[in-house]
Amino acid sequence: MEKKVYVIGIGPGAYEEMTIRAVRAMEACEVIIGYTVYVDLVKEHFPGKTFLTTPMTQEVRRCEMALEEAGKGRKTAMICSGDAGVYGMAGLMHEIRQETGYEEVEIEVIPGITAATAGAALLGAPLIHDFAVISLSDLLTPWEKIEERLRDAARGDFAICLYNPSSRKRKDYLRKACEILMEWKSPDTVCGYVRQIARDGEEKHLTTLKELTETETDMFTTVFIGNSQTRVIGEAMVTPRGYRYEKKD
Amino acid sequence: MEKKVYVIGIGPGAYEEMTIRAVRAMEACEVIIGYTVYVDLVKEHFPGKTFLTTPMTQEVRRCEMALEEAGKGRKTAMICSGDAGVYGMAGLMHEIRQETGYEEVEIEVIPGITAATAGAALLGAPLIHDFAVISLSDLLTPWEKIEERLRDAARGDFAICLYNPSSRKRKDYLRKACEILMEWKSPDTVCGYVRQIARDGEEKHLTTLKELTETETDMFTTVFIGNSQTRVIGEAMVTPRGYRYEKKD
Repeated sequence: MEKKVYVIGIGPGAYEEMTIRAVRAMEACEVIIGYTVYVDLVKEHFPGKTFLTTPMTQEVRRCEMALEEAGKGRKTAMICSGDAGVYGMAGLMHEIRQETGYEEVEIEVIPGITAATAGAALLGAPLIHDFAVISLSDLLTPWEKIEERLRDAARGDFAICLYNPSSRKRKDYLRKACEILMEWKSPDTVCGYVRQIARDGEEKHLTTLKELTETETDMFTTVFIGNSQTRVIGEAMVTPRGYRYEKKD
Repeated sequence: MEKKVYVIGIGPGAYEEMTIRAVRAMEACEVIIGYTVYVDLVKEHFPGKTFLTTPMTQEVRRCEMALEEAGKGRKTAMICSGDAGVYGMAGLMHEIRQETGYEEVEIEVIPGITAATAGAALLGAPLIHDFAVISLSDLLTPWEKIEERLRDAARGDFAICLYNPSSRKRKDYLRKACEILMEWKSPDTVCGYVRQIARDGEEKHLTTLKELTETETDMFTTVFIGNSQTRVIGEAMVTPRGYRYEKKD
């Protein structure tokens, strides 16, 4: 009996942002498990499945449930928003499988469109060249470590994509982050942010690093900070493919 | 008359790694333009379309062709492998539209699965936490700039994904990059690399930073370098969601 868990990135929200591979895997499963909000986003497209949900903080329990279901021989999908491998559940699933001794259950990770590239597409092309992805959530990472990363990414002139720029209890984190970035980046650096990508109420905004300091965001916002070459073309935020420099390869 | 160019990321190669949105947009187009290799990957799935191709170095010409076709009122798709916004054509399309005065042509970027997340899914979960994406190609970026970025990303303990790790004329670039990373990262850092993601001949390998120094790669390889917490679980490369530290949010 094949025992299998798919860990599936469903993309930013809309059904049509899922890959064909993700849809086919979910259709092949008996059980679909996820955080309540994500299950609600896809439920109508997968009739006849058993849906199991846990609240946001119970990620470990969610992995255990998936392994238990798969262990009984019921093909199971664990769904994540965006990509399962970017601040997602793919890693935890491997960790929990090892800890709970479910080694006989195979794990297959199916990638999805993460907020960095979905948001970039909405804004234009901010991440065309080298970039860093940093979460401002200090739930599992000391804030000092996050500050160091912001500083290193700014020093290296990376374009930067910020996940979790703020929450109700971390209202001033984005401002603190922008102030650190301005130690290395110009206050005029082209920036942008998007909210509710591919969901009702989708928004996009262009701004500057200075203005971003005063911008209120929430947990549905993804923030983009340009590199020194990023500019606004028409209404798009565009980072060029390199520096004005040509070399014969 | 609507004049529109879609800039579409088709993902790593296999048809089923495309999003439903990408497939629908290509089905709605009359003309599909791309680098020869990518057009060949998808051609059979879109019968009845006009396919136009240019060789690898003619990206500017490719954008002009797309704008010319769309300017005639023929709905046009410009396809890129991976995501159009990560070392792709989304930015150049905006630049060329402005330079050629085709402002009446609307540009819509449709995101795709980039090699960073497709490769990560194959290896396990190397990019779960903050990460940096760096190309080792010095065609448009001075090598000194690339070295700086490697150093800054390593100093910040980012997980790192390397695109274009080498080519025929840049055989020793990956070795040079690893040597720079080892100024900050342990030689035992867990690493991995994948070749020909979602295509015939797909391969994945786990290794260490020290061993990576001696590894031969090519332009179809994507390389993953762990952060200080990355470990091997079973046969998977897994970066944990944070550091062993808990904070009440």
